[in-house]
Amino acid sequence: LVERGGERARQVGALTFGPSAGVEQVVGITGAPGAGKSTLTDRVIASARAEGGPVGVLAVDPSSPYSGGAILGDRIRMQGHAIDDDVFIRSMATRGHQGGLALAAPEAIRVLAAVGMRTILVETVGVGQVEVEIAGAADTTLVVVTPGWGDAIQASKAGLLEVADIFVVNKADRDGAAETRRDLDNMLDLNPSMGEWRPPILLTTAVSGEGTDAVWAAVGDHRSYLVGSGELERRRERRLVDEMNRVLVHLLERDVRTLAGGDHFEGVKAELLGRRLDPYQAAARLLDAERG
Amino acid sequence: LVERGGERARQVGALTFGPSAGVEQVVGITGAPGAGKSTLTDRVIASARAEGGPVGVLAVDPSSPYSGGAILGDRIRMQGHAIDDDVFIRSMATRGHQGGLALAAPEAIRVLAAVGMRTILVETVGVGQVEVEIAGAADTTLVVVTPGWGDAIQASKAGLLEVADIFVVNKADRDGAAETRRDLDNMLDLNPSMGEWRPPILLTTAVSGEGTDAVWAAVGDHRSYLVGSGELERRRERRLVDEMNRVLVHLLERDVRTLAGGDHFEGVKAELLGRRLDPYQAAARLLDAERG
Repeated sequence: LVERGGERARQVGALTFGPSAGVEQVVGITGAPGAGKSTLTDRVIASARAEGGPVGVLAVDPSSPYSGGAILGDRIRMQGHAIDDDVFIRSMATRGHQGGLALAAPEAIRVLAAVGMRTILVETVGVGQVEVEIAGAADTTLVVVTPGWGDAIQASKAGLLEVADIFVVNKADRDGAAETRRDLDNMLDLNPSMGEWRPPILLTTAVSGEGTDAVWAAVGDHRSYLVGSGELERRRERRLVDEMNRVLVHLLERDVRTLAGGDHFEGVKAELLGRRLDPYQAAARLLDAERG
Repeated sequence: LVERGGERARQVGALTFGPSAGVEQVVGITGAPGAGKSTLTDRVIASARAEGGPVGVLAVDPSSPYSGGAILGDRIRMQGHAIDDDVFIRSMATRGHQGGLALAAPEAIRVLAAVGMRTILVETVGVGQVEVEIAGAADTTLVVVTPGWGDAIQASKAGLLEVADIFVVNKADRDGAAETRRDLDNMLDLNPSMGEWRPPILLTTAVSGEGTDAVWAAVGDHRSYLVGSGELERRRERRLVDEMNRVLVHLLERDVRTLAGGDHFEGVKAELLGRRLDPYQAAARLLDAERG
C-alpha cells in the first residue's frame, strides 16, 4: 500500500505515525553496485538477530526510471534468513515518478517500526542522489566500498563521504584493501564538515564473515554517540522536516501533471516545439495561463 | 552562468534557443564509477576530431548532494586534448538543490551548440536516476560496463538497459569480458521495450585504444538509424517537453521554499515534531493555510 501511495496509504501513514512510533535503530547501507552490500546486509541481520530483537530489511531497488521492472536479487541473496520469522525482508522498486522512493521509504520504515521491528536496515543499490538520500536518512549510514572500486576520488564524487557514519571496505581479501583504507582516511582528514564523530573504516570479507562482527559493534558505538550527544533527536527531527518538504514538492508536482492535462498545454507545447518559446518561457507561460 | 541559474542564465538560454540552434549530435556516456568512462570519452573525442568538427564535452560530476565540492578528475584525465582549440571540456558539478543538473545540462548543451560544437559528448559519473536521466537525454547513449562490474542484474538494476543505444564492455582485456557480453545479449533478448534498433555490444580497452574506433563507427550507425527512422526528431521533441516539465517542477519547488519561509511554517513544524501531524497532513495544512 505504502509503495503504491494514494488514499489508503495516507491512512496507514497516519496510523503508524505518532508518539509511540519509536524504533530502536535505522541503519542505512549504501555503495556502488557490486560492492557486496546484500551479503554484508545478510551478516548484519545475523548480528542484529543474535541480540534478540526482530529485524526489518528494506532493500531499495532503483530498478529503472523508464520501466516498471524490478529484480529481486537482494531478496534472493538474503534467503539465509528466509525461515526466521523475526526477519522481514521487503524489496522496494522505483515505480512511477522520480522521487517516489524517497517518499515511500520513510513511510515503509514507520510501518516496520509499528509492527515491532527493533532494528531496521535500509539497503540501497547504487550511489545516485536518490539512493544516497534514502540511505543517508538513517540513524547510522554504512558506506560499502571495495578495493577495486573505491578509490577516494570516486567515493567523494558520489557524495558518500558526507553521509558515511561508518566505512566498510568489503572484499578486503582482494589486493588494494589497505590502500583504499588509507585513501579514505586521507579524505576524512581533509573533510571540513566532520563533527565529533569520525567514521571508522572497517575491513570485511562478507562472503566468509571475516570482520563483520566489528561492523555491528561499530553500529552500536555510533548509536551510543548519537544518544549521548543528542544528535539522534536532531537527526530525526531534521528527517521529518525534510520529508514534509518532499511531500510538499510531491503535491506541487501533481499540480504540474494537472497543468499538462489542461487547456493551455497543447498551445504552449506547439510554441515550444516551434522553438518560439524556450522551456523556461513555456513553463512560465503555462503557469501564468493556469493561474489566470 | 547557466550552471548558477538565475536571470542572466535565462537571457543566455533564450539567446541560444531557436530554430538555428541545431547541433550535429549529442552523445551521452554513462556507467558505474571506475568503468573507464573518462578514458573512453578521451578516445571518442579523438575519433570525432579526426572527422574535423569541433567537439564539446560536458563532464557531469554529481559530486555531493550535501556540499559544494567538485573534483575535476575527468578534466584531468582528458588533458590529451588540452592544447586542441577545437575541443572544449567543461565539468559541471551538483550545486544547490536536487534536480539542478538535470535542468542545467540541456541549457549547457545548447550553449555549446550555439558556439559551433558539431559533436557534444555528455559524460556522467555514476548510475543514479539523475545521471541516467541526463545521459539518457542524448541522441545516442553509450553505456559503459566492465567485466568486473557489469553482471547483467546490476546493469538492469541501474536502469541502463532502457537507455542504452550502444553497450561498451570496457577493460575487455580482463577476465570475463565475453561473459559480460553474453549476459547483456541475453538481457537484450528479454527486453520487451526494444524497438527497431538493437544496441550493439562492443568490447574495448580504452587505455590502449583497442576497439575504440568501432565505438565511433557505431555512433555513426545509430545516427543514420535515428535520421532515417524519424526517431531523431521525435527524441528531440520529447526531450524539450520533458525539460519544460522539469522547469515547471522547479518553479513550483521555489513555491515550497517560499512556504518554508512563510508565516505558517513554524506552527506546522511544531505540530509535525510533536507528532500530532504526519508529514502528509503537515504539508497539506501548509498548502491550505498559504492558499487561504
